[in-house]
Amino acid sequence: MRAIHAKHRVGRRSLVFPGRPSVLSTFTVAGPMEGQGPLGRAFDTVIPDTFYGERCWEQTESKMLREAIVHCIQAAGAAESDVDVLFTGDLLAQCIAGSYAARDLAVPHFGLYSACASFAEGLIAASAFLEGGFAAHAVVAVSSHHDAAERQFRFPTELGVQRPPTAQWTATLAAAVMLGYPGSPFAGGAGRVRITGATLGEVIDVGVKDPYDMGTAMAPAAVDTLATHFKDFGVPPSYYDVIVTGDLGAVGQRIAADLLESKGLAVKDRFQDCGLLLYDRARQDVHAGGSGAACSAGVFCAHFYRGMMNGSWRRILFAPTGALHSPVSSKQGEAIPAICHAVALEAV
Amino acid sequence: MRAIHAKHRVGRRSLVFPGRPSVLSTFTVAGPMEGQGPLGRAFDTVIPDTFYGERCWEQTESKMLREAIVHCIQAAGAAESDVDVLFTGDLLAQCIAGSYAARDLAVPHFGLYSACASFAEGLIAASAFLEGGFAAHAVVAVSSHHDAAERQFRFPTELGVQRPPTAQWTATLAAAVMLGYPGSPFAGGAGRVRITGATLGEVIDVGVKDPYDMGTAMAPAAVDTLATHFKDFGVPPSYYDVIVTGDLGAVGQRIAADLLESKGLAVKDRFQDCGLLLYDRARQDVHAGGSGAACSAGVFCAHFYRGMMNGSWRRILFAPTGALHSPVSSKQGEAIPAICHAVALEAV
Repeated sequence: MRAIHAKHRVGRRSLVFPGRPSVLSTFTVAGPMEGQGPLGRAFDTVIPDTFYGERCWEQTESKMLREAIVHCIQAAGAAESDVDVLFTGDLLAQCIAGSYAARDLAVPHFGLYSACASFAEGLIAASAFLEGGFAAHAVVAVSSHHDAAERQFRFPTELGVQRPPTAQWTATLAAAVMLGYPGSPFAGGAGRVRITGATLGEVIDVGVKDPYDMGTAMAPAAVDTLATHFKDFGVPPSYYDVIVTGDLGAVGQRIAADLLESKGLAVKDRFQDCGLLLYDRARQDVHAGGSGAACSAGVFCAHFYRGMMNGSWRRILFAPTGALHSPVSSKQGEAIPAICHAVALEAV
Repeated sequence: MRAIHAKHRVGRRSLVFPGRPSVLSTFTVAGPMEGQGPLGRAFDTVIPDTFYGERCWEQTESKMLREAIVHCIQAAGAAESDVDVLFTGDLLAQCIAGSYAARDLAVPHFGLYSACASFAEGLIAASAFLEGGFAAHAVVAVSSHHDAAERQFRFPTELGVQRPPTAQWTATLAAAVMLGYPGSPFAGGAGRVRITGATLGEVIDVGVKDPYDMGTAMAPAAVDTLATHFKDFGVPPSYYDVIVTGDLGAVGQRIAADLLESKGLAVKDRFQDCGLLLYDRARQDVHAGGSGAACSAGVFCAHFYRGMMNGSWRRILFAPTGALHSPVSSKQGEAIPAICHAVALEAV
């Protein structure tokens, strides 16, 4: 039915990146609580308190994001002038964490918004820029801050409102990756983790209205994108060593796993969720798990990227999910639409 | 100094699109006041009142945006399934106009945020997707709604706060363009307006803190991107028949023109601003002019695209500007950073 088929398009919603854009460096700046979690020692920086020398949490978030970007570029041995385009995403209204972080950098800037799926949107957009010949090096960076998000999306933090068990904990984290090609002078020993393909998400709304249960709202979007991915590429879930969702948490991940299995997609033996890896739920009071734009990005950098580099996994399907509501849409009685973009990575 | 130069990169911040992605269709949905302005008869739809059957202006904006997208696809004779990717941008917190508009569409969705420069960011991202072989057809759509923006960024509309002469009027508008190639079965008689290149913006902050004077905040970003464009491409301003900024308004446009002229760039005989074309300032009480994410997009579709199609202009440099603050950043004492992305178009 398609009138014209784009060259690097597979199936209805998927892309292939034949040149295989590669991760050249990563950098993470984690909050104190994230630093005390199971991945604490894997983060590049753990800030001592939630303000980090700033007066407001929004400014803290922007500072964390800026530092992640700057140190990521430095980690690759590159300079700002080597970065052809910077993609940022965050949850703050009007995406101020990214805009204010970019203010201090002499780098072309594109702001993105797919809520907690923004990191995947950025990896896909950056890969398209690299593969299309529009950038030799790109940085993708996202951030979230628990306290800034909490007071924006829910209640003033001082109020201490009780949270139901389905609630998730927005991560205080910033993470940046620099993408290029293995032939880059900045590749060094890196460049072995490559982005081979992606499946673009559609906005899915199943009518969930509870902002304290975003896992349930997002699970159908994850199922839709993952099922489309396997169909578009004609591979079974077992093609990947691990299939990782962004921040479905304990509630949403179980729903997504059940729905995928009911479609005949056997994922359960290799299904992980960044929101469940970031914290120790037995020890840290995060209820259903972590969330936030930087939850999947931080866990990717600190855990999955390192694991791919040291040979633990060869192929990963990385599928961050985003809840696309706002405090205004919730108060106006709207449900919570969601999206999931999936990125396929391979270690060589 | 560049280690690796991307194939379609020119100078420090510019891209060329050798395949020349083309505009296949456009559609605009304008508010009542915009319908009474100088371009009123050029809009495809003018809604009768600012609610348009919805209970809240935010929902009205999302409805306008959805209709612009749907009718733009129809105007090309295409179906949703022909659209490989939809880029949306709006000013509402968490970009809800775009997310809720995309909810009803079975189209892969990428949310963007460059404030009122989002339309340019979308045109550039879509062009990169088309040229890279990642999409055969893409839709770029943006929206803004005066009342939704006013109560979000400034004061409750019911309060009737007096606005200073430097203030601009956020346009109630939604606009969509469908991009493809002239060989597309959906090109019809269109496809003659092509995107030939672009210059990516950096975030520029000159310290302006007054959200009632965004023209002054944004003018330096426009100057930076336009000057970079002429340098990167090695062309003088006279290469273009018209050079169009997005929504600098009367104050910002004068500043930008003076700054460009002081750099030896003679733009004044061909310098226009969408914010000054959308309303009749003598008759409509918009102070310094129009603004909003859809101001530049709506004026592009209703005025410049049509003018290019009918031979009035051959080459246009289209440079929407965005103010990247939020109500929170303003209250926290931050200045207003700005960005400008420029898109070069040519009629054949």
